[in-house]
Amino acid sequence: MLIDQRFYDLKGPQSLRTLLRTCGFESELAADIEISGVAASDSAGPGDLCFVEGAASQAEKVNSEAGACFVTDKAQSGLPDGVMAIVVSHPRYAHKLVSEALFSLKDWMAPGPDPAIHETARVAPGAFIGAGAAIGADAQIAPGAVIGPGVQIGARTKIGANVSIRCALIGNDVVVHSGASIGEAGFGVTLGPDGAEDVPQWGRVIIQDHVTIGANSCIDRGAFSDTIIGERTKIDNLVQIAHNVVIGRNVMMASFTGISGTSEVGDGVVMGGRVGIADHVTIGAGAQLAASAGIFRDIPAGETWGGVPAKPLRQYLREIAWIQKQTAPKKKPK
Amino acid sequence: MLIDQRFYDLKGPQSLRTLLRTCGFESELAADIEISGVAASDSAGPGDLCFVEGAASQAEKVNSEAGACFVTDKAQSGLPDGVMAIVVSHPRYAHKLVSEALFSLKDWMAPGPDPAIHETARVAPGAFIGAGAAIGADAQIAPGAVIGPGVQIGARTKIGANVSIRCALIGNDVVVHSGASIGEAGFGVTLGPDGAEDVPQWGRVIIQDHVTIGANSCIDRGAFSDTIIGERTKIDNLVQIAHNVVIGRNVMMASFTGISGTSEVGDGVVMGGRVGIADHVTIGAGAQLAASAGIFRDIPAGETWGGVPAKPLRQYLREIAWIQKQTAPKKKPK
Amino acid sequence: MLIDQRFYDLKGPQSLRTLLRTCGFESELAADIEISGVAASDSAGPGDLCFVEGAASQAEKVNSEAGACFVTDKAQSGLPDGVMAIVVSHPRYAHKLVSEALFSLKDWMAPGPDPAIHETARVAPGAFIGAGAAIGADAQIAPGAVIGPGVQIGARTKIGANVSIRCALIGNDVVVHSGASIGEAGFGVTLGPDGAEDVPQWGRVIIQDHVTIGANSCIDRGAFSDTIIGERTKIDNLVQIAHNVVIGRNVMMASFTGISGTSEVGDGVVMGGRVGIADHVTIGAGAQLAASAGIFRDIPAGETWGGVPAKPLRQYLREIAWIQKQTAPKKKPK
Repeated sequence: MLIDQRFYDLKGPQSLRTLLRTCGFESELAADIEISGVAASDSAGPGDLCFVEGAASQAEKVNSEAGACFVTDKAQSGLPDGVMAIVVSHPRYAHKLVSEALFSLKDWMAPGPDPAIHETARVAPGAFIGAGAAIGADAQIAPGAVIGPGVQIGARTKIGANVSIRCALIGNDVVVHSGASIGEAGFGVTLGPDGAEDVPQWGRVIIQDHVTIGANSCIDRGAFSDTIIGERTKIDNLVQIAHNVVIGRNVMMASFTGISGTSEVGDGVVMGGRVGIADHVTIGAGAQLAASAGIFRDIPAGETWGGVPAKPLRQYLREIAWIQKQTAPKKKPK
Repeated sequence: MLIDQRFYDLKGPQSLRTLLRTCGFESELAADIEISGVAASDSAGPGDLCFVEGAASQAEKVNSEAGACFVTDKAQSGLPDGVMAIVVSHPRYAHKLVSEALFSLKDWMAPGPDPAIHETARVAPGAFIGAGAAIGADAQIAPGAVIGPGVQIGARTKIGANVSIRCALIGNDVVVHSGASIGEAGFGVTLGPDGAEDVPQWGRVIIQDHVTIGANSCIDRGAFSDTIIGERTKIDNLVQIAHNVVIGRNVMMASFTGISGTSEVGDGVVMGGRVGIADHVTIGAGAQLAASAGIFRDIPAGETWGGVPAKPLRQYLREIAWIQKQTAPKKKPK
Repeated sequence: MLIDQRFYDLKGPQSLRTLLRTCGFESELAADIEISGVAASDSAGPGDLCFVEGAASQAEKVNSEAGACFVTDKAQSGLPDGVMAIVVSHPRYAHKLVSEALFSLKDWMAPGPDPAIHETARVAPGAFIGAGAAIGADAQIAPGAVIGPGVQIGARTKIGANVSIRCALIGNDVVVHSGASIGEAGFGVTLGPDGAEDVPQWGRVIIQDHVTIGANSCIDRGAFSDTIIGERTKIDNLVQIAHNVVIGRNVMMASFTGISGTSEVGDGVVMGGRVGIADHVTIGAGAQLAASAGIFRDIPAGETWGGVPAKPLRQYLREIAWIQKQTAPKKKPK
């Protein structure tokens, strides 16, 4: 995985032995290799360290190009030939520690070159622009907005009051209403020896041209990839978009809609208020999701679904009508 | 429609021909008229331009006083006599363009007279007060609060940390907790030739005396009218109130409640957490809406409803009990 | 009840007669006593004033140590011997008035000693640190963050952009993502002679070590006690935690989860997105609550529940399957 050095500092590549020692592991390695990055197990390359949390059958799916992989003892046998196994009790936690030894998130006040603010851009007094950020022509940054280091903001884009943005590339003609939080760490938790631990998030947020983001909405940055909002997608207030989510063009998302990690939403999808979408789900292009729907599976393109758990709207309405009929008070015979 | 020049700049009146040319329309007009404003089709007056998105039957409902109206070719025949028809492919989009040629939202940093801050008001260092705003006696503006140009804030009102307020008139003894966003553009989207387009919002937010607004809640300004929160209404955290909503007095709204555009809520209504109300719905005075209710229709005054879609609470509970009974595991006969 | 003078100013103790006169009550007291505090009726001590809203049967539950108690005329007879009764039409409203005569919340800009900022802590330009606050070693306070008077922030804790925190004690290694609001007044409303009135909140928020709080989430301070978030609990974006809630260790709360006042959540509980929990409910340790669940009753430890209103997940799934089967379109016989 390539890491964007506008947002993260690199402390690598390092030898695997050094990394493991730094992180407190006493692993006996048959050989040593250079590690330059971390990645998800299906996309890890030669210099990448990945992890497998499950059993041997999961380990079989690790990309055979991967440099090394944290596994539990029982899963070790499944790893493809050539992938160096590092046996640990908590593979995802070990991966977290190593990734934090290789990379670090630039904090809001990280030093760096002065931001490049176009001469026609207007930055309010009281707004904060981090080192290395770029603000495009005729862009507006409202009072109280906080733009992290390295963030790119396109032409004519308007950033509202008290918005915060980090680890993000924002296109042209985007509108971000007040109070939105863009680019914070997604919600990932793993178990370490002391209890719950945050999983670090090394990706970005990409917001394409003409997107509008409502007040107090949140868009998390990706974990190993990017969270992407496609052109002209329109997002209402108090919407949550988790890490790695990829949203197409011209999507409408009403208030309180939430999309869980790594789900994909096709072009032109319309969501009523309070729609919830589980993680790793795909919503086909042009689908319509009724207000309050809870989506736990893929939705075919062009269909209309509703209910919790969601089903085709026609079926949902039929169920509602049937229950109502079954439970209606009986009329007394005259 | 009268536009509040504390919040919007006027660039009109203009001749209809000039407006259309500015917006790139090549419409052949039989005559020309002065256009001073835009309005919804049922309330448009002589100098107003309105639009009809539907068929001829919709066009028939346009106020016969309206100056001119964007319509599609097929709907044109329905317009009342005397309303000048301007035939376009995307009436609502055309209306958007023309309104933006007539008006513009004052941005956060718009120039103007110094704000009028009462000598007993306390404004924190790091708060921003826009041009032409007024802050009443004994009011408090917390650090990080951003008050837009022209906003009026009453006596003894407390504005919390990192709150943003624009296009709004706030009464006396109001409390706005931290992080709330008041007066941003409501969620309105229409289709233009390039895809989804934001519909501009030209109204205000009116918050009456003794209202309390919870942390991180959002109240959007009206589109062609005002969003109004009645006296002593109490709003919890993370609540969403959309454009044009009118809420009565002494209404209670618990966390995650959302009210969609143009709905009305009568005096004394009580809403549990996570209540969702669809657009263009009326909730009668004193109604009670159970937590998690999804309201898609008018609710009579004084009634208690629950469920999704909501029904009278008694019926809802009967349905729940019936389903549970039908599906209970059969006890084995001994 | 002990009040934390880092967050509240005391104006007492005062004689009960003086207090009542200050608040506009014309109550004829047989005797006078010193009042130093207010409390909930079950924990009020000798110098405390409490209230009972219900009938005589409620008044019987008042702690017999309590100094005095506001009651309605009809409930008066239930009070234990030795508790001085003060008969009023709106007991909770009277209690509010008296508490506000005894205490006052320090506002964001309250004067006091300079904050104690550890020499290794980094406070961004544009952040606000109130009087008497303390910032620990290696802590980071991002731009736009607002830290109220007296707030304590532990070592290595990171406070995000535009976060606000008041009336709170924050541990070590805590992460608060951008836009979160911590320590605002909980949602409590009572009826006074003029309509709805906010009930004042005199408690704190306690956040233990290694807790993570998502962007734009809200945690309200307690009313008469503290809102507590246990060690290593991980909270996603746009989550609401109401006053007096007590959450254990290693709890996971996904986006849009809301916990109503005075509920308790045991160690290791896992909540999917959009879980709602009613007030005064207890969730046993290790319970799992499915996404979108609405919890209106206590949940036993270790169980998995789902649905609205929630039931054991197995039963919920059985009901869903049964309804679907009953309403499936009949296949035509060939």
